[in-house]
Amino acid sequence: MNTVRVNLGSRSYDIVITPGDPAGIGPFVRSVLRKASTALVVCDANTQAHGRAAEATLAASGLRTGFATVPAGEPSKSMEQLAKLYDALYDLAADRSTAVVAVGGGVIGDLAGFAAASYNRGLPLVMVPTTSLSMVDSSVGGKTGINHPKGKNLIGAFHQPAGVWIDLSYLDTLPEREFLSGLAEVVKYGVILDADFFAYLEANAAEIRARAPQALMHIVSRSCRLKADVVEKDEHETTGLRAVLNYGHTFAHAFETCGGYGTLLHGEAVAIGMECAARLAQKMELIGADFVARQTKLLQALALPIVPPAQWRTDELIAVMRRDKKAVGGQMRFILPTRIGEVKLFDNVPEPLVRAVLESR
Amino acid sequence: MNTVRVNLGSRSYDIVITPGDPAGIGPFVRSVLRKASTALVVCDANTQAHGRAAEATLAASGLRTGFATVPAGEPSKSMEQLAKLYDALYDLAADRSTAVVAVGGGVIGDLAGFAAASYNRGLPLVMVPTTSLSMVDSSVGGKTGINHPKGKNLIGAFHQPAGVWIDLSYLDTLPEREFLSGLAEVVKYGVILDADFFAYLEANAAEIRARAPQALMHIVSRSCRLKADVVEKDEHETTGLRAVLNYGHTFAHAFETCGGYGTLLHGEAVAIGMECAARLAQKMELIGADFVARQTKLLQALALPIVPPAQWRTDELIAVMRRDKKAVGGQMRFILPTRIGEVKLFDNVPEPLVRAVLESR
Repeated sequence: MNTVRVNLGSRSYDIVITPGDPAGIGPFVRSVLRKASTALVVCDANTQAHGRAAEATLAASGLRTGFATVPAGEPSKSMEQLAKLYDALYDLAADRSTAVVAVGGGVIGDLAGFAAASYNRGLPLVMVPTTSLSMVDSSVGGKTGINHPKGKNLIGAFHQPAGVWIDLSYLDTLPEREFLSGLAEVVKYGVILDADFFAYLEANAAEIRARAPQALMHIVSRSCRLKADVVEKDEHETTGLRAVLNYGHTFAHAFETCGGYGTLLHGEAVAIGMECAARLAQKMELIGADFVARQTKLLQALALPIVPPAQWRTDELIAVMRRDKKAVGGQMRFILPTRIGEVKLFDNVPEPLVRAVLESR
Repeated sequence: MNTVRVNLGSRSYDIVITPGDPAGIGPFVRSVLRKASTALVVCDANTQAHGRAAEATLAASGLRTGFATVPAGEPSKSMEQLAKLYDALYDLAADRSTAVVAVGGGVIGDLAGFAAASYNRGLPLVMVPTTSLSMVDSSVGGKTGINHPKGKNLIGAFHQPAGVWIDLSYLDTLPEREFLSGLAEVVKYGVILDADFFAYLEANAAEIRARAPQALMHIVSRSCRLKADVVEKDEHETTGLRAVLNYGHTFAHAFETCGGYGTLLHGEAVAIGMECAARLAQKMELIGADFVARQTKLLQALALPIVPPAQWRTDELIAVMRRDKKAVGGQMRFILPTRIGEVKLFDNVPEPLVRAVLESR
């Protein structure tokens, strides 16, 4: 078992990573939320079994529980599903000490997290991520939100969890494509922050794909630590530091918006986005062909896609990128690599270069 | 002109109180939000003229502006109207520096404030309160939110404004009943925090009712300072200190919920709630008849109601009070006075006493 501490003053919390301990959730919630007497478990159709098991351990730990299920998939990050969670909290007679326990992937974490952030002006949240992607990314850092019909995550709040419980045994039953998708964010941490970690991924790609327990423990723990380091320095994305986490994401969000949510998994969009960002950085002469080749080779070793589907219209992608949350005054901003382990923010990237990268597919 | 500084570390801001300077809003927004290039003005049908004037001064100060109007009244604190503001922000191509400028009473401040809190995970907010109630209460302190069909302000966030612009000349055209309603919160500050201020209100009730400019400047400035003192000590209502502001409000929220929003103005519900709280405190032998008499006399001198309408069912009121946001584990908690200028939190108030207060109408 590893513990990663996220140091945010009064909002500090622990990420506990266990090889497998489904009965541990109840005691964990108890230990991080001593005042809680009730808990609402939120899950989707895919994580209902994990959710029911979590509910049982919470009940065994003396909590009065509620249970809410939403349909699986990105469309559940909606005002409608949010309203259903508000109803579930009301029916549970939730008070300000009621814990919201999000058992699922990024969609559940984002949706349940925003419900927790906004019900009664803030309930404590415990993240129980069940996918590789949510374990290394969305369950850490306090971003919560839902989608607007015109933009992903356009409605949301920063709301740090009271704790994160990562049980790696959930990965045993995760479908292959979904498991691999989460690895894109792991590669990202290597590129943006840690050349040694990148080299570890290159050397251990086969073990990782085979879900070897020790490899999973290492990549999840290291990814959480790297993300926590960034979040600690820029909790609310105000200094620009946290923006490094968006490497590949300006492209990825445009792909997801134009493709309609659901065509690509988020991690797949990020993998293609990182490939595009690397090629953009090469065109800007920030890096050489060697960087692009190493990143491409690693993404391919992890069976991740690198080529944007042909049907997307470049004009539409560019228009979406100009509206990106991180855009300011309509300028195009990108996080681009300068070497393995380092990225920087570039304002005012010339549109023709972005266009060229998108059109060379 | 008076300035009240709210000291909250990186979230500190100024409340500027002017006797009348409608052209001052644009320069004020510019001065508190140097990075903003766009602003969305939000108002309702009643404050549309003030909103358009504000928009003109924002445009004159070089900001690109958008304008959104919602129907007047409490029902606009809904998911539907919130979604309309999200659309307006999207249509304005809002980025994280876009200012949301709330021109109106508490409904507009709460609704626009929550839209600002939750769009793009947080936009800067400038409050321009136009009613006596919002000037002394809701525009200060960072509470934002909308209503759930089953509970007032059940959905919301703490989101401090970047600045508050109070133009007392807006009060000139405020309908009498609405103007008086806001004075209930002013009386509240005297009762809970400041015996001298309470005595000032007793001595100057006639001038206040006549809206004498110097009296208005004093009561608004003093109320904002008193509220700011409390908010500074307990920004997120976690230590219990901020709870003193809820004097009269556990009753008031139940009145508003059971009466359907709109039957009573919020300040009227608070006035009746303070009367009930004082009588409850008397039954608990915390205060004597002299306290109740002084408070009753002042509320009446300001033409505020003190008797709960007869049609409310006691059982229903009690059930709502048990679900109050400030309730914990279903216990009834009340802020009750111990003398003029001091209140304390009482847990576990016996239900029969609450019932007796409600039934003695």
